[in-house]
Formats: sequence, C-alpha cells, structure tokens
Amino acid sequence: MSRFLSDRLSALTPYTPGEQPQDFNYVKLNTNESPFEPSPEVIKAINTAEVERLRLYSDPECKKTVKAIADYYGVESKNVVLGNGSDEILAFIFEAFCDKKIGVAYPDISYGFYEVFASRYGIDSKVIPLKEDYSLCADNYCNLNKTVVIANPNAPTGMAIPLFDIEKIAASNPDNVVVIDEAYVDFGGESAVELTKKYDNLIVVQTFSKSRQLAGARLGFAIANEALIADLNTVRFASNPYNINRLTLLAGEAAINDKAYFESTRNKIIENREYTVEELKKRGFTVLDSKTNFVFASHSEKSGAELYNGLKANGVLVRFFNKPRLDRYLRITIGTKEQMNTLLDALDKIL
Amino acid sequence: MSRFLSDRLSALTPYTPGEQPQDFNYVKLNTNESPFEPSPEVIKAINTAEVERLRLYSDPECKKTVKAIADYYGVESKNVVLGNGSDEILAFIFEAFCDKKIGVAYPDISYGFYEVFASRYGIDSKVIPLKEDYSLCADNYCNLNKTVVIANPNAPTGMAIPLFDIEKIAASNPDNVVVIDEAYVDFGGESAVELTKKYDNLIVVQTFSKSRQLAGARLGFAIANEALIADLNTVRFASNPYNINRLTLLAGEAAINDKAYFESTRNKIIENREYTVEELKKRGFTVLDSKTNFVFASHSEKSGAELYNGLKANGVLVRFFNKPRLDRYLRITIGTKEQMNTLLDALDKIL
Repeated sequence: MSRFLSDRLSALTPYTPGEQPQDFNYVKLNTNESPFEPSPEVIKAINTAEVERLRLYSDPECKKTVKAIADYYGVESKNVVLGNGSDEILAFIFEAFCDKKIGVAYPDISYGFYEVFASRYGIDSKVIPLKEDYSLCADNYCNLNKTVVIANPNAPTGMAIPLFDIEKIAASNPDNVVVIDEAYVDFGGESAVELTKKYDNLIVVQTFSKSRQLAGARLGFAIANEALIADLNTVRFASNPYNINRLTLLAGEAAINDKAYFESTRNKIIENREYTVEELKKRGFTVLDSKTNFVFASHSEKSGAELYNGLKANGVLVRFFNKPRLDRYLRITIGTKEQMNTLLDALDKIL
Repeated sequence: MSRFLSDRLSALTPYTPGEQPQDFNYVKLNTNESPFEPSPEVIKAINTAEVERLRLYSDPECKKTVKAIADYYGVESKNVVLGNGSDEILAFIFEAFCDKKIGVAYPDISYGFYEVFASRYGIDSKVIPLKEDYSLCADNYCNLNKTVVIANPNAPTGMAIPLFDIEKIAASNPDNVVVIDEAYVDFGGESAVELTKKYDNLIVVQTFSKSRQLAGARLGFAIANEALIADLNTVRFASNPYNINRLTLLAGEAAINDKAYFESTRNKIIENREYTVEELKKRGFTVLDSKTNFVFASHSEKSGAELYNGLKANGVLVRFFNKPRLDRYLRITIGTKEQMNTLLDALDKIL
C-alpha cells in the first residue's frame, strides 16, 4: 500500500478471481466458462472491416446490442443497461442504490464480490446465513428495509429458489432495491425478468460469460424499470461512457440473436451436468442440487483441499474455497463429456 | 431519477461525450479519433482462433500487454496498470487518491471528466483558472497539499507545459499524488514517464485511443511507482478484475509493438495539423498552439455555435463547448489531408 491511499480504502480486500493459467495445459473446470466456442455468428461478426473500425469510439448508447437484448427478453430498450461484464453492473448497482444509510443484505455464502463492493463503498452489510443444507430462506429477506442482493441460482452452491420467493422478497421491500443476480439462470433457474414489469424495485442482472460463451469479451446487463436503468446510466456516464468496446457490442448482438446455438449448447451442459452428478454420487460424493453450469460436491473421506490438490496434480483445475462451511467442497465447472470423464478418471485415481 | 438513488449521487451530472453518429455520414472531426486504421499487426492479432477463445476469461493480470507497454516505456511491469480506456484509470485514481480530506485540484478548462469524478466521489475541488491566454501557470499547482490532476497537453486547448513545470509541481507536493493525463502527448508534448522513476507521487496516464487508433477497443494505462500501481490494482480487483477483454489485450500488445506504424501515422497527423493551422490562420482564425491531434480555433466574425452548426449542415462534425471562455471556439480533430480540405472548403462557404 502506498502512503497516498485514501483512508476510505485502507481496509479494502479485493476479490480473488479463480486461477487463469495462460498456458492451456489444464482441463479447466474452475471458473465456470463454457467448453463451447462462441456462436458461429459471433465469429462472423468480428471481421476485418470491424477491426479496422476500432479507430472509432464505440456507441456510448450501445443501441443495437441493447435493442437485441430487449427484444430477446420482451422488454424495451429503456429497460436495459450494459456493463463491462456483470461485475461492472453490480458495482454500478452498489454505488447507486446502497450507502451508509440504506445498507445492503446478502447471504453468507454467495458470490464473493458482494462483500467486496460493500467494503469498497463503505456500506454496512447484513450477512444472512444460508440454512444448514445450504438452501436460502426467503423469509429472512422480507421487510428488511435494506437493498437486497441474491444470486439465483446461487454460487458456489448452484441451488435455486423459486420465482414466488423472489416475488415475496420484492413485494415486502417496496422502498428498497432487490437485485437478482442471474449469472447462471440459463442452466435451469427461473428468471425474474417478467417480474421487473410488476415491481419497480426489482433489478435482474445477467451475463454473456456463461451460457453465451463470451467470458473473455466481458458483457453483462441489467433489466429493470426505466427509472432504475436511468440511474444506472447516470453512474455509467459518470464513470466510463464508452464502457463496452466495439467488438464486444457486435459479439453480444450476434450471440443473443443466435437462439438455436444458445439452446443446443445450454442443453448439452445440462445433460453433461446430470451425467456428472450421477457419476459423482456413484463415487460417494454429496452433490448439492445444481441449476447451474457447475456442481458443488464434497466427499466424506477427503477434504476439499486434498481433492483440489489431487486433481491439479492430475491436470484438472477446479475451484476450492478455503472458508468455513465451504472447505469440504469443490466447485466443478461442467465442460464437455470428455472433460467430465477426465475429471472422473482423475478422481478415481485419488480416491 | 428513481426514488431509490443514493443521496450521495443525487446531484451527480454525468459526462457528456461527443456525438457518436452510427451512420458514417459525417466527416467526423469531433472526438479526436485517428483517421487511420489500426496497425496491420492489430488486424492480424484479432483472428478467428482468438475470437473462438472468447469463451475463456481474459488474463486478470494482463501480463503480456503490460510487459509490452513496460518494455516500450523502459519501466517494469510492476509500474504499469491497464484500464478499460483511460477514463477507467482516471476513475480508479480519483477513488484511490482523493477523498474529502485530501481534496483535488485541476484547471478550470480541461478534460470535463475531472469534475464529474470529483462530484461522483464527493471530493472538494480547487478549480484553478488558466491564464487569459489559456496557458497554465505551474506555480498555481505548487505546495497545494491536494491531489493534482493536469492534462498535458491540455484539452480542449491543445497547449502543453514543459517537463520542468511538471517536475516543479511533483517536487513541491511530495505528500500528494500528481496525475499527468497524457492522452495527447504523442503529438508533440513531453512525456513525464521518466520522472515517475524519480518521484514516488507522480502518475502518468496514457491511452491507445488517439495515437494508436484503438478508441473503440478501450485501452488506457497508468505508469507510476510500484506502490501507487499496487493501490490502483487493489481498486481494479475490487471493481472488475477482468476489466480488459481478450481482444483488446491482443490489440494493445500488437499496437505497441508496431513502432514504425505508430511513428508514421503520428507524423502524418502532426504534418496535417501544421497544414490546417496555417490554412485556418489564412482564413482569419485564431488558433491556440496545439501539441495534440486537434486544434482549438476561434473566428472574430462568427461564434462557435454558428461555426459548429454551419459545419454540421455541410457534413462536417466538430466539437463545440457551450461554456464561458470556450464558446467562441471549435475543437477540430486532425484527420487526413482530404478531410481537412473538406473542413476548409466548408468553412469557406460559411465565412
């Protein structure tokens, strides 16, 4: 730390992303990327003529990509805002709708960035424990009088709550924003997008990183009532009006328009997940009920650290969280069937 | 504004970027983009194999691109941090090194984002007027006991201060960060990069948007003492660890390594600028001494608004600032010689 850092940030602990080895030598099942390439339409969209246009700024209103997303989800363009990944959208939300007075609530086990953002903006957090079985009790989030942030499906558990729970939470906190982070919703969760038409306090956040194969392009978005989106645009235009680069705008538009590719790749992931869950259970694993492109699994005979290290030694990277309640588990991304078989073979060696 | 927006932001006025028409129908001399395509090496670097890899997250450490920039400027990788455009880097700097206690100082006429960032983070600004002739008096920035932010060359004036002025400012504010925003330095200014080795409080910010033809890719960077860069990385990892997408990392690396292309395009811009200045003066314009890829010019017979509207009606977009001290001027980006002749012909019609 330099002697110049603001006191405001002196206790800030940044987020630790999963390992991103640059040598392509691992079977990489640690950061919930898709094992499939982006849609062929994305490959076509990023052509030489468009690379040549990089000399020009991107559209700060992101009109065409916003419209494509709005059309896909049956909302208007004024209900959509784009971020440089959904992390940026979440940061905008914490900045706009949380402060010392308002506060924020989220589960003890969830996406690690929520507590980082709370600490970054000096916001008091009410951290609500998941139940013993890692399920989320919606009643704990009703009538809170704070901004509520819930990942649904949750990470790293993979478990989802039903739409009527979301509606209960939104309806019981009418004077506070309720944020549903749906990064993984396409793999089996129920999206709350339709509810944003009914509740002016509800924001749904999604990403192109998982189900649309664009983790490396960085594109996330929020859908909400027009006034909330206008506020998020105020923050966006006060931080980085050209936050989405030209090629990512094109990639996002092409990806959202290729519904057939999206559905076929999504279905393959779900199929491979069900296969993996079954095979893990055969090997004595406890696997939480996943609605995502990863599974969260533990084994009675080996700790999470032992399994993680054993797999890494066998060329398979998974994610291990060295934290209370999580340290017996591995978070394993669902890849191709071949990748999952490599994982299972490696586990057979270790166990 | 929604009823949920934090009081903190209720008075926030976002930045207004220049017009970005998406129809390519104008001679676009309004946002200081390069008239030249990116380096052929950039076109090569963004190939199908790399687009396919968009399924994977980018390197959060940006190792290869950081190393290429560090090598180019004769510093170490630990002295460089990348942003999603230099706007993001400036935002990180305001967040890390300014607060209510520290404060910030910048000129009254400069890049409009400084006051937006100050307002966003609730920082008191000491706004220091440029002299009557738009030059910057370095003594006004000495011994301030505040964070100092200076664009050198300045925008929208285009005028530069010499390196010994920068050194005086850095040396006289040893307990505060001094930020030199060198977005336009490649067109004739003197860079303070070498001084960052001597002054642990000095940060130089640059961008790939102007002299490296990558406005639409979004890439900026800061060079400074290791401890300052570590602080900026703390903020980066607490906001968006994957802030630079895969293709922009590749584009940046290819662009910085193609020195010959950089120099030839930069030299053409300087040549076209000198031609434009001469031709404008022939037509009765007052033109400030520009060390950038734009000129700031006024005409005694027509207001800035009249000239701006007249040019727009003739298919030429330039930038007009409807503000005191600026409203008689136009900021005109330097394009190709053909584009500058189109501008001059249009001016001949108007005058």
